[in-house]
Amino acid sequence: MKTRRRARGQAPRPGSPGQIIALAFAAGIAVGSGLLLLPMATANVQPGASALDSVFTATSALCVTGLVVVDTATHWSTFGHVVILGLMQVGGLGIMTVASLLVVLVSRRLGLRARLVAQAQSGNLDASDVRRVLRNVVLFSVVGEAVTAALLAGRLALGYGAPVGEALWEGVFLSVSAFNNAGFVLRTEGMAGFVGDPWMLVPVALAVVVGGLGFPVIFELVKSWRPRSWSTTTRITVITSLGLLVIGTALLTALEYGNPATLGPMGVGGKLLTGFFSAVMPRSGGFNVVDVGRMTPETWLATDVLMFIGGGSASTAGGIKVTTFGLLAVVLWAEMRGEPDVDVGRRRIPVSNQRQALAVALLGVGLAMASTFALLGLSDEDLDRVIFEVLSALGTVGLSTGITANLPPAGQMLLILLMFVGRLGPLALASALALRGRPRHYRRPEERTIIG
Amino acid sequence: MKTRRRARGQAPRPGSPGQIIALAFAAGIAVGSGLLLLPMATANVQPGASALDSVFTATSALCVTGLVVVDTATHWSTFGHVVILGLMQVGGLGIMTVASLLVVLVSRRLGLRARLVAQAQSGNLDASDVRRVLRNVVLFSVVGEAVTAALLAGRLALGYGAPVGEALWEGVFLSVSAFNNAGFVLRTEGMAGFVGDPWMLVPVALAVVVGGLGFPVIFELVKSWRPRSWSTTTRITVITSLGLLVIGTALLTALEYGNPATLGPMGVGGKLLTGFFSAVMPRSGGFNVVDVGRMTPETWLATDVLMFIGGGSASTAGGIKVTTFGLLAVVLWAEMRGEPDVDVGRRRIPVSNQRQALAVALLGVGLAMASTFALLGLSDEDLDRVIFEVLSALGTVGLSTGITANLPPAGQMLLILLMFVGRLGPLALASALALRGRPRHYRRPEERTIIG
Ligand SMILES: [K+]
Ligand SMILES: [K+]
Repeated sequence: MKTRRRARGQAPRPGSPGQIIALAFAAGIAVGSGLLLLPMATANVQPGASALDSVFTATSALCVTGLVVVDTATHWSTFGHVVILGLMQVGGLGIMTVASLLVVLVSRRLGLRARLVAQAQSGNLDASDVRRVLRNVVLFSVVGEAVTAALLAGRLALGYGAPVGEALWEGVFLSVSAFNNAGFVLRTEGMAGFVGDPWMLVPVALAVVVGGLGFPVIFELVKSWRPRSWSTTTRITVITSLGLLVIGTALLTALEYGNPATLGPMGVGGKLLTGFFSAVMPRSGGFNVVDVGRMTPETWLATDVLMFIGGGSASTAGGIKVTTFGLLAVVLWAEMRGEPDVDVGRRRIPVSNQRQALAVALLGVGLAMASTFALLGLSDEDLDRVIFEVLSALGTVGLSTGITANLPPAGQMLLILLMFVGRLGPLALASALALRGRPRHYRRPEERTIIG
Repeated sequence: MKTRRRARGQAPRPGSPGQIIALAFAAGIAVGSGLLLLPMATANVQPGASALDSVFTATSALCVTGLVVVDTATHWSTFGHVVILGLMQVGGLGIMTVASLLVVLVSRRLGLRARLVAQAQSGNLDASDVRRVLRNVVLFSVVGEAVTAALLAGRLALGYGAPVGEALWEGVFLSVSAFNNAGFVLRTEGMAGFVGDPWMLVPVALAVVVGGLGFPVIFELVKSWRPRSWSTTTRITVITSLGLLVIGTALLTALEYGNPATLGPMGVGGKLLTGFFSAVMPRSGGFNVVDVGRMTPETWLATDVLMFIGGGSASTAGGIKVTTFGLLAVVLWAEMRGEPDVDVGRRRIPVSNQRQALAVALLGVGLAMASTFALLGLSDEDLDRVIFEVLSALGTVGLSTGITANLPPAGQMLLILLMFVGRLGPLALASALALRGRPRHYRRPEERTIIG
């Protein structure tokens, strides 16, 4: 009976991984909101930020989303900026650590090795596992952020004449924001001041890509560059990410090529750089170098798709993840070819794994639909902008067509909820799906339905 | 080698079911367009209809969609109306016959019975099968249409004072249009003249529902009303259809309740009747009693979902079908509960069947996305209207927010293509997926990927 109840996975026991993460994030948002409510957190705003603005900003920072209802640069004081920096760093590290622990647990329980080694070992993490994963994730973050910060601070000091102290502070802020896929910027115009400058845009884009691939994949890539040694997760992540980057860059560059409000006035090099940057950011860095609100509706739609897919599993990126999307594409390909098995490289993907991907994608579509429906009712905006903002919040992307700050309070509260659910939902779902047992009591006789 | 090539299912041999159906439909459209191009087909239009208008109308009629670029009532002569009636009847019968034959073939090859009886029998239809299915489908159509026509003609004569001849003609036209889920009406204002009249609206809605459930399901329902004896196909179709009707009616009535352009001025009974009618029509009857173009964007979005899902397999309805949608919902439910098997009633759904549903849904989403993208580029319309028109064409629904007639020629040609693909694609796909062999040469070792 106990096994049966646990197996349903619907009402997790108190203390299930999903609940612990959700509680921790809720506590983090409460602390962050409290700090941002202090009068010293705002600049030139008396008597301080509103409750809604504080909660929105704290949620956006901790859930590494980057959507804003007030101008980050001018609304908050330096103290406020430090709070936002801290929230981004804690949120990014928290997500990466928990997700990486989950990966260790799942590989141990369900991977090839689990069946070759002792069964008794399966299903439990001890303190040394946690320490090891935490150490590696922190090392990964510190190295990635330090390299990016050094490059950006150097460029700000040498190329833009910023004083060393200011260049370092902005470099660190931008680097943490980029590596954790958060998308907060200390400038009112976002990244628009760096348009056409590869020394600023490329480090930010690379930090977003590396942070968005996720620690487990980067760890494998560092260990070996030979694709033959990669796990299926790394294989799918690398191929899908590369494909989406190339297709996204080509598509966005082409769609905005003649738009006088975006790429139109630039040279070909600038167009390509901006197109690349704009194709990286929906998954889910969230920085923008041209005004998203003035892009074409076709670009919005292409960006919607990229935001829905998101980045790598166990990374700081959001969305249904490239693993889910890539696996579904492989399943579809196998079905079209009539292959009974779904193979990736030299490995067969278990049917239960395929079903997990289906569940994550279906829940993502359902959640996006219901949220779009709700925000359409709560606002007076057009469908294209509403879909964009919903997918940006759910995918913790942070790009905006410009409507978020003008939404009624209920609309902004909905976005707060979506950022929270978008950040924690897939992780909670993945842990619930992956960790439970699958008892097989009996099987019923088969019968097919007609499809299509 | 031959088995291998055939198993891939990508390049069907000449004479594959999918190709034969596509060629037959293309021929039907050519003949229909030719007839509509004749000067005698138009009323008061010299020197006759344009080529694009003729092809659009012929495709819309044969693919039982109902989208129009010219006013059916005033643009075409009675000869033109007879051509449209013929195309609707041939298209509806053709789809039902081919799909029902496929059902027989699939049940025989893959069903429980195939394994209990001789293997040699599998995979072939003989002339007696074709005759039997054709006879039953024609019987089903004639009975359904005759009953509906009698009710409608009687009401038109008694309630609206139409002369008997005219009442009969309009009753037959409307009945064929409804039963085959086509959505053509002989009145400029559509069904708006019958608003609040259950004697007209209920027979039309019921004909749409019965035609949209499909012959195999109706055949089982007629044989037995006891759910325990139903196949999984019938079980999923009935439950999903009922659920969508109830939810759709409640949702659409609530969303339009106070809209002065639609339900606002009506009494409660009229609101409910119109809400019910408007919830039946997206799947995929296509009749409208209030102006779709003046419904709220929320209603459009809800209607979009209903149009995407569509009606029953092997019916005159379009969409990915309620079987596909219902099966995916059951798979998701099983995954959330942690059940290793996906059971419907007392039967287990094979994994390959689940994968077919996934493939149909993914291709549907991909096709809808790409088409929306294309039509957004080809027109100056907003995303919400473009999505609506694309899903209406792909789902062969025929509802319109009013933009179809004003689209540029390239946009109208895209809709022609979508109606054709939307009508034949799922059938061709289902036959390709269901009919091929699935050789198992060897299996690779398993490895899971991380999801979400
Ligand atoms: K972000
Ligand atoms: K229709």
